[in-house]
Amino acid sequence: MSYQAPYKDMQWLVEQAYQTQQLGNLESLQDFDLDLANAIMDEANKFASGVLAPLNMVGDEEGCKFSDGQVTTPTGWKDAYAQFRDSGWIGLALPEEFGGQGLPKYIAQPVNEMWLSSNLAFVMFAALAQGGSEILLKFASDELKARYLTQIVTGEWTVAMALTEPNAGSDLGALTTKAIPQADGTYQIKGQKIYITYGEHDMADNIVHLVLARTPDAPAGSRGISLFAVPKYRVNEDGSCGEFNDIRCTGIEHKTGLHGSPTCSISYGDNDACVGELIGNLNQGLVAMFVLMNEARLSCGMQGVGLSELAFQKALQYSKERVQGAGANGQRVAIIEHPDVKRMLLNLRSESFALRSLGYQIAALIDVTEQSDDEEAVKAAEKRIALLTPIFKGFATEQVNELAGDAIQVYGGMGFVEETGIAQVMRDARITTIYEGTTGVQSKDLVHRKIRMDQGQAISGLLAEMRGDIAKAPDNLVNKRLSAAVDQLAQVLDTTVLNPNADLAQLDAVAVPFLNAMGGICCAWQLARLALTAQESKAQDEAFFGNVEALAEFYSAYKLPLAQAALTTVSLEQNGVAAYQF
Amino acid sequence: MSYQAPYKDMQWLVEQAYQTQQLGNLESLQDFDLDLANAIMDEANKFASGVLAPLNMVGDEEGCKFSDGQVTTPTGWKDAYAQFRDSGWIGLALPEEFGGQGLPKYIAQPVNEMWLSSNLAFVMFAALAQGGSEILLKFASDELKARYLTQIVTGEWTVAMALTEPNAGSDLGALTTKAIPQADGTYQIKGQKIYITYGEHDMADNIVHLVLARTPDAPAGSRGISLFAVPKYRVNEDGSCGEFNDIRCTGIEHKTGLHGSPTCSISYGDNDACVGELIGNLNQGLVAMFVLMNEARLSCGMQGVGLSELAFQKALQYSKERVQGAGANGQRVAIIEHPDVKRMLLNLRSESFALRSLGYQIAALIDVTEQSDDEEAVKAAEKRIALLTPIFKGFATEQVNELAGDAIQVYGGMGFVEETGIAQVMRDARITTIYEGTTGVQSKDLVHRKIRMDQGQAISGLLAEMRGDIAKAPDNLVNKRLSAAVDQLAQVLDTTVLNPNADLAQLDAVAVPFLNAMGGICCAWQLARLALTAQESKAQDEAFFGNVEALAEFYSAYKLPLAQAALTTVSLEQNGVAAYQF
Repeated sequence: MSYQAPYKDMQWLVEQAYQTQQLGNLESLQDFDLDLANAIMDEANKFASGVLAPLNMVGDEEGCKFSDGQVTTPTGWKDAYAQFRDSGWIGLALPEEFGGQGLPKYIAQPVNEMWLSSNLAFVMFAALAQGGSEILLKFASDELKARYLTQIVTGEWTVAMALTEPNAGSDLGALTTKAIPQADGTYQIKGQKIYITYGEHDMADNIVHLVLARTPDAPAGSRGISLFAVPKYRVNEDGSCGEFNDIRCTGIEHKTGLHGSPTCSISYGDNDACVGELIGNLNQGLVAMFVLMNEARLSCGMQGVGLSELAFQKALQYSKERVQGAGANGQRVAIIEHPDVKRMLLNLRSESFALRSLGYQIAALIDVTEQSDDEEAVKAAEKRIALLTPIFKGFATEQVNELAGDAIQVYGGMGFVEETGIAQVMRDARITTIYEGTTGVQSKDLVHRKIRMDQGQAISGLLAEMRGDIAKAPDNLVNKRLSAAVDQLAQVLDTTVLNPNADLAQLDAVAVPFLNAMGGICCAWQLARLALTAQESKAQDEAFFGNVEALAEFYSAYKLPLAQAALTTVSLEQNGVAAYQF
Repeated sequence: MSYQAPYKDMQWLVEQAYQTQQLGNLESLQDFDLDLANAIMDEANKFASGVLAPLNMVGDEEGCKFSDGQVTTPTGWKDAYAQFRDSGWIGLALPEEFGGQGLPKYIAQPVNEMWLSSNLAFVMFAALAQGGSEILLKFASDELKARYLTQIVTGEWTVAMALTEPNAGSDLGALTTKAIPQADGTYQIKGQKIYITYGEHDMADNIVHLVLARTPDAPAGSRGISLFAVPKYRVNEDGSCGEFNDIRCTGIEHKTGLHGSPTCSISYGDNDACVGELIGNLNQGLVAMFVLMNEARLSCGMQGVGLSELAFQKALQYSKERVQGAGANGQRVAIIEHPDVKRMLLNLRSESFALRSLGYQIAALIDVTEQSDDEEAVKAAEKRIALLTPIFKGFATEQVNELAGDAIQVYGGMGFVEETGIAQVMRDARITTIYEGTTGVQSKDLVHRKIRMDQGQAISGLLAEMRGDIAKAPDNLVNKRLSAAVDQLAQVLDTTVLNPNADLAQLDAVAVPFLNAMGGICCAWQLARLALTAQESKAQDEAFFGNVEALAEFYSAYKLPLAQAALTTVSLEQNGVAAYQF
């Protein structure tokens, strides 16, 4: 089975996001309307289904090979990269000034989703190029911009993000890689980094490493970290690749999934000849890195959407082909006729649909922050994005792990056999709850930074918007169910999450359940709102819009109660966590 | 890290099961008391941790090799099998008459758990020997018993279970393998079977295949299936292995987990020279097979326990070693100090503890059915086991998939790397919700056969027992929470599951949520009861018994609300499943 972009869903949800965030009112987006979005999605689908999807299992089976510092990507990878680069996909949402296409995020988001569904391991370089470019645009000197940006935006060179060290993962403040200032204003970089995606590969001529390191007199902890641009090959005056910059790949991880994407250990400056240049201010590396991090977290949430969609498509097709068991009339039927199989397919379908809607809304909100002249609107959008980022990242990735399990379950015994490719989805998905900040890290960000430090402003705004939407049809069954959940959420915020006297350890012990509750309620809200629009539009396409209503009903019956259960857990004072002695 | 049996837990939970089911009153068990149980667990732990556990990752990395009809097991497998066999572990709970040790099930269960934790892929032959022997004991002629039983019980030969065909999986009634009667009373077997665990291997001299097939004039569907004993090598008069019986392995599956256990496709009678002998009555093969199936389902539930324990042990050890992030006083701490990590560890710990308790209680109930002279007690135990089997199988295996995810999460990035072995637990666990009847199959068995056809008798008995336990300390917080859940369960049974007018398709669409709710409530009940006993015993060992209380509190706060949410889903009339059109 080959992946096909869920074109109709995407088109409608892009339109909904465009209208909800009123992008039509933004002057700078006048040339980037829904017709353009559709045309681009069409092209992207051809590439995703025609070029990337067929390589997905090849990458899993072959994996990357490491030998003597070199990484060889799987068969077809290099050629696909060249096509991807030459088609201009890398710079899709990057400035035209540097060779990009300058498209708004709301158009880029469904395109990203297609890449993520069709071959996640392959396209990981694309998010790195996007995030790396945004860092350089925002923080780098003009000289650095001139040296690197066009090369990155056009895909001539790739970006690698070198953060983690063996003893510094979630806690970046513990990192020890050194940056020693040189007389010419550059720095000599020295240290070991791990978990560097595409830190070494054979697809491009140069790799620009963005490395977090400490200068000798930097303060301890996270306030003493600076960010450096460290190319694999130094760049000559004329922009060509010069001398080797003493960056060595020492190995790649043997991972349970994402075999096609090399996860590298890198040694910088073994021979004291690794030169880096400072990006932005000294000791403010984490500020810059957070730009990339937020980008990466949203992209990671979209990985949840993309893999859920892939799992759904595969399970759906198998369930239509596999004949097993009898239907109501005693005849043998395809398993899609069995209510329990339908339940699993609807879990996949409703969750991926709702998360997609949320992801597209976030992309449209980013367009507001980047394109609107209305300061109030920009500020509100920024706050909303900040609130939704940990929810979307955390919940979408937790969900895709569960959903991949359901998809395997639809396959039965065949789901355990690698040839179907569905087990690969489970294995690939497994990392999404870990990298770019674990779900635990997201949940602390949500509870502490995004809610408590914000004194509940952003979340109050979100709840008000939900209640406004519910008020449009208060007697609607789905809205009624949602309304009860929103009330419970408001209460839990009041008694627990926003309680100034809350026991912080106790709060951290329920932060993940709280994040999951928020995710479920946000998804139920998306579907409830979409169902109201669907109801109004039903005459145009009864089958499609009737199904949107059914999805909202399904979600409110099967998933919303789980969100409410998590809220119950959050609200309980005695939960045994503190009492247990390991 | 090497697995070590959770000896103290096991000892206490065995004792609890022994007392709850009053095994001390059974005359035939007078020689098999708790002291004996402890001595045997001790020996088993040495074997599990010393011999089996070190081979677990070897099996995963090497896998089985297939070439020209032969299957080669991983390095060390053959030798470990010889040790396992020579130590008499295979016949532990099988009759002394045939070379077994005749131990009761309550002693065999913790021993089984150790095998399943330490090397699931390896020990799959043990459950096949147990179930195969029980079939022969119950249904085979004395001639067949004499020919096969001693060889199987002593492990000279192994058993393979040949049920599934490419078009007959969950629906065995669709199978087409033929059994053609011969003049001498034997049958010629001809057909293709798949998914046969240890259907071919290099560890024993002969393999006794138990094959489901149809005679030429058998009725269609599941009423025309008979069971045959079909050895790989025919058995000579003197009991030695004779002529090759035309059974060919045509391949092994490339699976995502359980690499060390060969999953074979087998072709029977390619040259019309495969001889089988009927076991039990013609056309009643499924009746016999259900003996093995029930055995296998309970064993599969124990796989959930065993793998959860393994995941817990690994995550616990890692969480104590891995230093990351700051504690309350700002110092760097091992991650076990973080409340969110504690939450995940307690999810693993409480669930595996509760499921272990349930599994041991079931084993003790089997002892009652096999050893008691009290007909009433036997009948009640049989009904209880029948009710608990799909719950235990379905819930324990669903849970282990979630728990393996939590364990990986504790490892962070290292969890995605194969060298830690934790990703293997996830991959190995993945099949447990599928084989021996998917969770969907278990849920239909639970709702239709075990509850509706039973007119709610067995489940009423279970609820009464739960309420009796709650009544012992009605003011206890954990009991209060449990009591609310039991009330909700009783109501959902009344309005929905036992409702004679229920829409059956609607019921099937909520059968898995119902099974999960039952599982969660049963586990919460086990822990609540254990916590009361722990409270009484606290003076003896404050640390251990205090923790048992904390586990019950944790479960009632984090897991019980999810069970109640599932009950809410079951009770809702509109859930979108019927409305959605694929």
